[in-house]
Amino acid sequence: MNTVKVGLLGLGTVGGGTVSILQNTMDEISRRLGQNIEVVIIAVRDINRARPVDTTGITITDNTAEVVNHPDVDIVVELMGGTTLAKTLLETAIENGKHIVTANKALIAEHGNALFNKAKEKGVLIGYEAAVAGGIPVIKAVREGLAANKIEWIAGIINGTGNYILTEMKKPGADFAQVLKVAQELGYAEADPTFDVEGIDAAHKLTILASIAFGIELQFNKVYTEGISKVTADDIRYASLLGYEIKHLGVASRAENGYSLRVHPTLVPKNVLLANVNGVMNAVMAKGNHVGPTMYYGPGAGAGPTASAVVADIIDVIRWKNQPQADQVPALAFAQDKLESAPVVSIDEVEVGYYLRCYAKDHAGVLAKISAILAEYDISVEHMHQEPSEGKPEEANLVMTTSRVKESMMNQALQALSSLDEIDGEITRIRVEDLG
Amino acid sequence: MNTVKVGLLGLGTVGGGTVSILQNTMDEISRRLGQNIEVVIIAVRDINRARPVDTTGITITDNTAEVVNHPDVDIVVELMGGTTLAKTLLETAIENGKHIVTANKALIAEHGNALFNKAKEKGVLIGYEAAVAGGIPVIKAVREGLAANKIEWIAGIINGTGNYILTEMKKPGADFAQVLKVAQELGYAEADPTFDVEGIDAAHKLTILASIAFGIELQFNKVYTEGISKVTADDIRYASLLGYEIKHLGVASRAENGYSLRVHPTLVPKNVLLANVNGVMNAVMAKGNHVGPTMYYGPGAGAGPTASAVVADIIDVIRWKNQPQADQVPALAFAQDKLESAPVVSIDEVEVGYYLRCYAKDHAGVLAKISAILAEYDISVEHMHQEPSEGKPEEANLVMTTSRVKESMMNQALQALSSLDEIDGEITRIRVEDLG
Repeated sequence: MNTVKVGLLGLGTVGGGTVSILQNTMDEISRRLGQNIEVVIIAVRDINRARPVDTTGITITDNTAEVVNHPDVDIVVELMGGTTLAKTLLETAIENGKHIVTANKALIAEHGNALFNKAKEKGVLIGYEAAVAGGIPVIKAVREGLAANKIEWIAGIINGTGNYILTEMKKPGADFAQVLKVAQELGYAEADPTFDVEGIDAAHKLTILASIAFGIELQFNKVYTEGISKVTADDIRYASLLGYEIKHLGVASRAENGYSLRVHPTLVPKNVLLANVNGVMNAVMAKGNHVGPTMYYGPGAGAGPTASAVVADIIDVIRWKNQPQADQVPALAFAQDKLESAPVVSIDEVEVGYYLRCYAKDHAGVLAKISAILAEYDISVEHMHQEPSEGKPEEANLVMTTSRVKESMMNQALQALSSLDEIDGEITRIRVEDLG
Repeated sequence: MNTVKVGLLGLGTVGGGTVSILQNTMDEISRRLGQNIEVVIIAVRDINRARPVDTTGITITDNTAEVVNHPDVDIVVELMGGTTLAKTLLETAIENGKHIVTANKALIAEHGNALFNKAKEKGVLIGYEAAVAGGIPVIKAVREGLAANKIEWIAGIINGTGNYILTEMKKPGADFAQVLKVAQELGYAEADPTFDVEGIDAAHKLTILASIAFGIELQFNKVYTEGISKVTADDIRYASLLGYEIKHLGVASRAENGYSLRVHPTLVPKNVLLANVNGVMNAVMAKGNHVGPTMYYGPGAGAGPTASAVVADIIDVIRWKNQPQADQVPALAFAQDKLESAPVVSIDEVEVGYYLRCYAKDHAGVLAKISAILAEYDISVEHMHQEPSEGKPEEANLVMTTSRVKESMMNQALQALSSLDEIDGEITRIRVEDLG
């Protein structure tokens, strides 16, 4: 049986998981593949550290260049993270004719266009299934499984930390800061949680999903990103009363004159399956013009799930590497010379529904005034809930959801509403997507 | 741009959908594929009938042999159904070196082993994504996306008619017969609903899923099949009280000495996402030893969704047909000479939890007697609910769920319970899967 040789950059959680799968499940894999996969060299930061897996027979080095220049290595698997050294190393590997598998979402989202072009030139493949939604084969499902469709939109819970926090905030008495602390203790959130809770990680993944859905270049710097740190337990409770869950979604949709890429807290109707995805789990919905709505669900992180995707990519690379290049699945789903140039539009141009919450003086006429202002901007109120404000007997908590309207229009309406004497303080605004 | 020529057998709902996709979405598809796909000939039953799609430029014939012998046709797409003529035609097509795409679950489940062997011999591909769960790319996801895993079990809602009926039966006052009638009026159920509600259709699909999950031959005749016609609205309500939904699942799992393949009504905990899949939608969960639980959700039938899968298969066949045969994804996920021979075990050997419902004389001691008998067979009661029986004041409705136990043992326990004077009539038994 033929053996394909692999070199790893990095032996952390996912690297360990990858070696472990290749050691423990090789029987099952070779029943599928008809070939063996062998890790021959691994670059690590500290050569003296204890390893999570048995590395007998594998060269361990702290010289990353050794991996990408290794004469026996067919596939370089990059699991070190970062966008500087990792990029340089992969460029060298490609130059050397090695195929690439990576779990590095930041690298693909920020430098993928150049890397994919270089890979095409050199006739090598880049697999990156593990970069989006961990163990869920969502890149494969959308890029190949839905290939007969024009994708209308794609929306997903693509950061487990954020979803864990929002799920836990539903418990009585929980608030963001306290739940974040528990998440940090459990290892679900980093000491500096910015990357996850402010949506940067999700924006990396969404960038990739948008490209394979629409056939556009990777445009990470165009993603509108809003985190979940301002979502309150009250918002979650009110949303529930109105029939919604609040999820931190990445959404890529078609807009009037281009595409909209955004990550923000979103009210999703409870009867949409995505709204029921809880805890650290990930899920991505993709709606195709023929297939309708589909969803892909599973663990978005962790050694086993992420390594499952890494090894699936290694298997695909082995199967595809001797295919005529013209027959290969394009890296971003669409032929590199057929990518569309329609722009990613500003968040101002995006049309969504809104959830609004404010404190209003509790006297007759205030609702009429609010509705009248909204109507001026062609916005109608869809659901409304009012309840006495604790501590401020003369005020009411007012929450509502509105019809779909352009963000720029809603901004004007909010400015007009804010000037009302009856409204006390800021108006909270969270976007609503019905995902229908 | 190169054009690949396709011949269709059948121009019903899915055939019409397939032609329509190839006519309306070819721009998007060729941006992905770099090639064109053209339907050159279609065999229909009645050559004079009006067509749901524009067939200008396509040869329409009622001679099916013309399609499979057509010199220009590269790929034969079989959408006529049935297992007799369809089988003969596909054998001829394979003999003629044509690749095959089919949506015919019965054909694959019952005759797939021979067809795949013949195709391998002749060096042609058979795509059958549309045969399982309509538009959901679940064959691709499990066969390729989870290729790094040993699959522990696979379970799914793979018949939309059944799921629609069970969902509607949750509405107050609904019963099976009445909901079935509505389903028939809406076109969700056939005039003779046996195929769907008795689980035969689901058994075909499960046969295929089990093969690609475990690497075993297709063994349709070994699937244990139980329909939903005996599930009552009361069972659905009681299950809900105990924290479950009742779903008609196809389940393929590993058993002590082989594999278990079964289709039956199943209680699924409400906090498992699959339990929240409602209406005509389909969903398949697959648990891999590394990835953990994953789920694939979408429309399981209909022209658009099924044709979406058919066309995705056509695209895959075009991409894969010039690959070295040794590199091609094996039809059943595992190399044909590496299929496992471990047997499909009898339902008696399967270990599951149970939901039991009976009428019991409402006097002290009856619960103790029941628990004592169950304990004799090592069965413990996990949840219990008792309520007065309407119309029979001296009796109670008793429902419970039990620990996991071998079916043969449960059968003995049920026999012992039935002999109790305190139990009136039959004991209803529905299997429980926690899908954890």
